[in-house]
Amino acid sequence: MTMLAGGTVLAIDAGGTSCRALLCSQSGEVLGYAQGGPANYHSIGEGQARKVITKLLQSLPCRPSSVECAVFGLAGLDTRKDREVLTAVAVDTLRAAAIQTDQLLLENDGMVTLIGATGGSDGLLIIAGTGSIACGVALDGRRVRVGGWGSRAGDEGSGYCIGMDALRHALRTADGREKQSGICAVILQEKGMVDVEELINWLYSSDFSVDSVAALAPAIFTLADNGDWQARTIVNNALNELSLMAATVIDKLALSDTNLHTVLAGGILEKNSWLREKLAHSIQKLAPQAHFAPAVYPPIVGGLLLGLRASGGLVLPGTLQRIMAGIP
Amino acid sequence: MTMLAGGTVLAIDAGGTSCRALLCSQSGEVLGYAQGGPANYHSIGEGQARKVITKLLQSLPCRPSSVECAVFGLAGLDTRKDREVLTAVAVDTLRAAAIQTDQLLLENDGMVTLIGATGGSDGLLIIAGTGSIACGVALDGRRVRVGGWGSRAGDEGSGYCIGMDALRHALRTADGREKQSGICAVILQEKGMVDVEELINWLYSSDFSVDSVAALAPAIFTLADNGDWQARTIVNNALNELSLMAATVIDKLALSDTNLHTVLAGGILEKNSWLREKLAHSIQKLAPQAHFAPAVYPPIVGGLLLGLRASGGLVLPGTLQRIMAGIP
Repeated sequence: MTMLAGGTVLAIDAGGTSCRALLCSQSGEVLGYAQGGPANYHSIGEGQARKVITKLLQSLPCRPSSVECAVFGLAGLDTRKDREVLTAVAVDTLRAAAIQTDQLLLENDGMVTLIGATGGSDGLLIIAGTGSIACGVALDGRRVRVGGWGSRAGDEGSGYCIGMDALRHALRTADGREKQSGICAVILQEKGMVDVEELINWLYSSDFSVDSVAALAPAIFTLADNGDWQARTIVNNALNELSLMAATVIDKLALSDTNLHTVLAGGILEKNSWLREKLAHSIQKLAPQAHFAPAVYPPIVGGLLLGLRASGGLVLPGTLQRIMAGIP
Repeated sequence: MTMLAGGTVLAIDAGGTSCRALLCSQSGEVLGYAQGGPANYHSIGEGQARKVITKLLQSLPCRPSSVECAVFGLAGLDTRKDREVLTAVAVDTLRAAAIQTDQLLLENDGMVTLIGATGGSDGLLIIAGTGSIACGVALDGRRVRVGGWGSRAGDEGSGYCIGMDALRHALRTADGREKQSGICAVILQEKGMVDVEELINWLYSSDFSVDSVAALAPAIFTLADNGDWQARTIVNNALNELSLMAATVIDKLALSDTNLHTVLAGGILEKNSWLREKLAHSIQKLAPQAHFAPAVYPPIVGGLLLGLRASGGLVLPGTLQRIMAGIP
């Protein structure tokens, strides 16, 4: 194990599909980088999350015995109980990797994504992928999140919700409650099924998953583009939900009159330009000076930025650019 | 094992919360009766369903070596695949209990409930309990079912759907997307929780279940009765869904001009007289001669009725009354 001088910051981005760790000096020199598998403890269990993060930290090529600040950006950090569980995970995995830290910060992965996306300024982030969430940071540092409560009772406007709306409609057309649209045929085609009975079997089989439902969304988008009335209704509902999430963040942080850096991210918003443009339009109605830009930095740099600020104070733009240049 | 002469009929009512078996002669003499536990193979697994039904049949006090007809009314019999699985379950459990049968009939439990409820005439049954379903039988014997596709993508108007609507609303008020109503406080009180964070933890814990969500419905009814606007919206949505299910059955079987025997059943419709009366009203708008009555016979007698008809032809009213008198 290489010994490093103090003043270094470690960021861990522990997401639902992959995780990474990045170590840098106060001046932005990248000292180590590693990648690993999914790490959301709600999906894979606490024990597996510990294993994944321990392995991630142990695979850092240049491992310090101590850092000034360790920042964990964590999928599944939603409640006090999550914070308790994940603080223990962070403390124990750092110990297992023999890394001491002066400060330990835990943030929801959405918030770290937003801070990276805006380079640490005030801003608004809407993510719509398999799940959905809206996060905002005000100039005075206040933070707000809306939505993102998971597939069971939240994630409105997400790929999962679009897929479930389509599945419910298919069943309602099958028994005659709603008139036929193109949706049922498209779902069966996507799933390689012959009829709705196979669909019902699948719904209650072990093959059913949140991801496999969200995977239906692109086919619904194509149908909507081709004028299918019910597909359009479903996509419109998703738009309304995402617009409401954005409006709620803008209202709670009083961002209407700010030069709002807005980032629209996630597979659903990347794939559907109609949805992205309509959502941008509805945000601009509420915050006329809002401007839309891709994320400036990835989530892991958002985590480092928080750590650098917590341990050293002012972070110059050159520092973040140096970090970006140093990521393998 | 007692040997019985031929001409007997065996009915099995294998529901989601309990099961029973009833054996009778062509003239309605009850020869044996037994009860057992939950038997929906979607909930408890095929292996456990086999065990429960085998135990049920083996516990019949007067077990015949052969019957003329065995009728299974089965929760979870929705698709061809269900029919394949459950036919094998029926054949194997009868064999394990050493009962031979000339005929074997398998029916969805909703349909057997309807046939019992109307005493075998044409009719309409709406069940709204933890789940929901609408079934209809026309005078010419045609049968239709609408809804009842389970908690994952169906069961509209059920206790589960009412509970989920309430939970979603609670989360939306918590992050500011919807204005407060009395719902969140009532849910926390029902669950003995302090705040919404506990609710979110519970949503993704192993304590979460379809039953525990459906158990929220009565509290939502009380709120609606007391004028809470959001609770009223949720109950109204349930009414609209159940009305649509009824309307679809009436339309598909052309029951508008018939003297429609209608049965409204299940915990939700039994507990909420407002909902029951509004639903009855909406059915009468579509079928003005519809009349509402409690179930004439329980589901198990519906099963026997099917078996008696299949094996012997005409079933006199006295036969069914004799069966009822003979059930312990």
